[in-house]
Amino acid sequence: MSAVVGCVTGFLTYETTKSVVVKSWSVGITNRVVQLVIITYFVGYVFLYEKAYQVSDTAIESSVITKVKGFGKLNDQVMDVADYIYPPQGAGMFCIMTRAILTDNQFQGRCAETDKKFACETDEDCAQHVGSVLSNGMMTGNCYKSSNESKGMCEIEGWCPAENDNVNVEPMDLKNFTIFIKNSIRFPLFNVTRGNFPPTMDIKNCTNNEKDPFCPIFRVEDVLKKIQRDWTQLAVKGGEIGINIEWQCNLDENIEKCVPKYSFSRLDAPFEKNKISKGYNFRYAKYFKTQNGTEYRTLHKVYAVRFDIMVTGKAGKFSLVPTVINIVAALTSIGMGTVLCDIILLNCLNGADRYKAKKFEEVIEDQTTQTVSPSPDSQLSLKPGMKSSCDSGAISLSMSD
Amino acid sequence: MSAVVGCVTGFLTYETTKSVVVKSWSVGITNRVVQLVIITYFVGYVFLYEKAYQVSDTAIESSVITKVKGFGKLNDQVMDVADYIYPPQGAGMFCIMTRAILTDNQFQGRCAETDKKFACETDEDCAQHVGSVLSNGMMTGNCYKSSNESKGMCEIEGWCPAENDNVNVEPMDLKNFTIFIKNSIRFPLFNVTRGNFPPTMDIKNCTNNEKDPFCPIFRVEDVLKKIQRDWTQLAVKGGEIGINIEWQCNLDENIEKCVPKYSFSRLDAPFEKNKISKGYNFRYAKYFKTQNGTEYRTLHKVYAVRFDIMVTGKAGKFSLVPTVINIVAALTSIGMGTVLCDIILLNCLNGADRYKAKKFEEVIEDQTTQTVSPSPDSQLSLKPGMKSSCDSGAISLSMSD
Amino acid sequence: MSAVVGCVTGFLTYETTKSVVVKSWSVGITNRVVQLVIITYFVGYVFLYEKAYQVSDTAIESSVITKVKGFGKLNDQVMDVADYIYPPQGAGMFCIMTRAILTDNQFQGRCAETDKKFACETDEDCAQHVGSVLSNGMMTGNCYKSSNESKGMCEIEGWCPAENDNVNVEPMDLKNFTIFIKNSIRFPLFNVTRGNFPPTMDIKNCTNNEKDPFCPIFRVEDVLKKIQRDWTQLAVKGGEIGINIEWQCNLDENIEKCVPKYSFSRLDAPFEKNKISKGYNFRYAKYFKTQNGTEYRTLHKVYAVRFDIMVTGKAGKFSLVPTVINIVAALTSIGMGTVLCDIILLNCLNGADRYKAKKFEEVIEDQTTQTVSPSPDSQLSLKPGMKSSCDSGAISLSMSD
Repeated sequence: MSAVVGCVTGFLTYETTKSVVVKSWSVGITNRVVQLVIITYFVGYVFLYEKAYQVSDTAIESSVITKVKGFGKLNDQVMDVADYIYPPQGAGMFCIMTRAILTDNQFQGRCAETDKKFACETDEDCAQHVGSVLSNGMMTGNCYKSSNESKGMCEIEGWCPAENDNVNVEPMDLKNFTIFIKNSIRFPLFNVTRGNFPPTMDIKNCTNNEKDPFCPIFRVEDVLKKIQRDWTQLAVKGGEIGINIEWQCNLDENIEKCVPKYSFSRLDAPFEKNKISKGYNFRYAKYFKTQNGTEYRTLHKVYAVRFDIMVTGKAGKFSLVPTVINIVAALTSIGMGTVLCDIILLNCLNGADRYKAKKFEEVIEDQTTQTVSPSPDSQLSLKPGMKSSCDSGAISLSMSD
Repeated sequence: MSAVVGCVTGFLTYETTKSVVVKSWSVGITNRVVQLVIITYFVGYVFLYEKAYQVSDTAIESSVITKVKGFGKLNDQVMDVADYIYPPQGAGMFCIMTRAILTDNQFQGRCAETDKKFACETDEDCAQHVGSVLSNGMMTGNCYKSSNESKGMCEIEGWCPAENDNVNVEPMDLKNFTIFIKNSIRFPLFNVTRGNFPPTMDIKNCTNNEKDPFCPIFRVEDVLKKIQRDWTQLAVKGGEIGINIEWQCNLDENIEKCVPKYSFSRLDAPFEKNKISKGYNFRYAKYFKTQNGTEYRTLHKVYAVRFDIMVTGKAGKFSLVPTVINIVAALTSIGMGTVLCDIILLNCLNGADRYKAKKFEEVIEDQTTQTVSPSPDSQLSLKPGMKSSCDSGAISLSMSD
Repeated sequence: MSAVVGCVTGFLTYETTKSVVVKSWSVGITNRVVQLVIITYFVGYVFLYEKAYQVSDTAIESSVITKVKGFGKLNDQVMDVADYIYPPQGAGMFCIMTRAILTDNQFQGRCAETDKKFACETDEDCAQHVGSVLSNGMMTGNCYKSSNESKGMCEIEGWCPAENDNVNVEPMDLKNFTIFIKNSIRFPLFNVTRGNFPPTMDIKNCTNNEKDPFCPIFRVEDVLKKIQRDWTQLAVKGGEIGINIEWQCNLDENIEKCVPKYSFSRLDAPFEKNKISKGYNFRYAKYFKTQNGTEYRTLHKVYAVRFDIMVTGKAGKFSLVPTVINIVAALTSIGMGTVLCDIILLNCLNGADRYKAKKFEEVIEDQTTQTVSPSPDSQLSLKPGMKSSCDSGAISLSMSD
């Protein structure tokens, strides 16, 4: 029974470090200043700025619907949204056509190239272009000449006539177009769902995000102004614009404060200095059938402004575990001032050796006697101070200890 | 030579803290309980729940292919997948049409608006609408009147006749449609690739995820039931549904357990209370040519249910580095109980002052004597206990120390 | 006044642990080796490899534009980019058609199914198929027979004639097609924008990423070679290929070193062993109108190779806060060698008990006397060594202490 009590008593002990308390103004001040810096860092940066007491969720789920409104004139035709938006579904990525080069009534067949670099005099001139991917169709290797002419163009097989994109088309003005953005997000960790405009908002009467920051309608001209993009160049060559929606939500506050922040960027900025491959264009075709069933098409080379809506976000909410961990980390870190203070105390101060003697107790490996039991060998093996190896004797030990 | 040995000997020392062992039941129990809590936290939460022994990869790469099957009737026409899916490629985002308002045979020209808000009596009434983006075409500013009538509608230039979307179209029933989802993912850090159904699955015979959780085929009706969405309202106005595929993979276990979890959400939930801008619709056009080459079009205003498939995931695998770091952190943290126990020991217990005297040794800055060597100055400068400044003398020191 | 000074003096103290310095080769070597391992880990792994002195940004914003060039022949027609790319906008996800099964001149009506599984003799045979989603239209439940035949096919309502996809179409060869990728990224935290090819690059003269790693043009054949994908099978059934663009940017170095790394993967690899649902195909329709205004269509079942461009990235830059935190963590961790060394010192070495006596001082709860002041009770309550409970007396205490 007593063995059990002894065992329990042996187990229920508490081990704490023995400390030396130094009453010195210089070290004391250093110590407190370092502790103050550490506390300030934890309270100010870790807790208030970085919100270390929160768990955060950056895996935002987002869904974007867009709707463009406005009318423009291109080639004397009035274009509406069904004409100029690609793709039509109103997703987070969409293109608004600014110019289109149309090649009407293309049928499958053989015809001459249009680009100067395919000029030829003999079939040999065209042989080198066979397999080229830069032409308007498959190179046949023949030089296609009108009757009685010595110069011609290489012949292609494919949709004829070949597209000639050296045409000057006046761009459509879309500066007054508006983009309506409907963005709903969800933070899966907290199951919080938000929309980019409040339920009470009267969408019909809000016309512009410039006037009301909650209005999810953006005029193209305002966007261009914000990214300092010149309209003329953009209209002719096309381009790319990024619309960033950023959600920074502190769920410990009122959920109504969890609102989006819009910003805009020029996605083609890195390629601005490139001589070619500027702007943005793509080709597509509308297909028709003649009365007798032959398919023909109108090829559209479309220059467009492409909008990419990118949604990023982070939500944080108080949680016990990170709070406790960080408080413990803070408390532990406060003791870290000792690293610096010990250096000062043991090296820079007057009486450093005295502090050393006080802080360090030396015990030397007992290499001669192999006694296992802790015999009261007060001689030599125990010495105060790290370097005062010349001191010896029980008295001096008990003194300085 | 001896200098080198001395130097090496001086280097090969080991410094450990001197500890005070308190044999007290109250502090001992507190100490062990705190240690138990810390160990439980690390073993239970950090290691078992949070799997801190693993490196994790959240940068999941995902590719989604979808295929919808089913037939519906709209305007007495049978619609198949090529008719009702936008875009047709079967990507992670797709729309299924529920209703469509068609405006046939639109040609470029001038005609009257259809919406009541553009009613007019004189041209002045229409001047205010010039530049509007809410009309069906460019406002000319004229009031368009049928002969012998005093009231008319503002004239537009564009595709005529103008769309009239105040038409009642019976929605197509897509409750029995099925959505097949093929999702392949990759965790780049571990180079692990997985598909959302096992290679042994017989897709032809599985009809429904409800019956077999590995079957990647979902009936629209089941999805609606799960998100408690009323079909009637959704069908008329359109809407947005999110399909979340979540991959939580513990790669230390059998890779076959790395399977997806499907869940569904209403992406338009945040906008439910909004009076307008509900639902989801978009416009697109089919283009035709008359015999003499004039282009005309059919404008489609399509109400649709949009499905967004969002894939998230995380994979973890044992790794030595985080394991060692967290074990070390755990071991270090066990010592953290001292913070709490010291407070109890030094303040709340009987004999607290005695413990203080034992734990703290005091050394006061020696401001008078500038002796560098640790002279056996047993007087005054060394005192036991933090506050027992009245005690002095070598004897009491050696006693309580 | 003196009270204030006393208070300030009491506050400006510095508490440091009292240490035992063990001069033992075995423990000393262990101590230094453990410290060396910890320092090596921090310097080598944490600082150099993991770059813990940097803040990092993984929330890369990316925008991808693609352009495919090349000509192929399908059904004796030359196909250009407007014919074979879906969708045409050149986004990060696009499909290149390899085969297409066309069903021309489909009108709304009733006709016979084409698939053998819908063969019938009586209407009862077809009743079971009503509601099927695997047919080419809505099952009417009738068995459609040509005159004077006993066997027929179930009748469908929808676009007629029904598609028959048991047709052998020679795939288009797209091995020589080239894919041009324009990728601009941004790290929002550092506001760093980069493009995937340098501004000085002459795109016109670079033809292949194989020859010049900065050239953003990829031949399909090279891509197939890299993922060891057999062209024949891919061409017939379609498939999915992932193009990964990885940005690992160390912004402390020259920004010109922040360049993309391209890699390729087979996204359909997880489904390779599945017997069905292999490859990739989708259906869409081109719509036409007869002279009298009836709509008809050509149904395309398109087998395609789908390319998914996935952009991932991480940027790091020196920052003071993580540097300081990690240096402090490193310094603190160096002390962690004591855990191991203490175990050796106190258990495995000769003279372990002597070290114990030196390291631990014991203080027993004073249960008999309830004196609050630290009376100089030198008897019994203070004992050196954890287990040397047989030692007692002031002398031995002062000796071994």
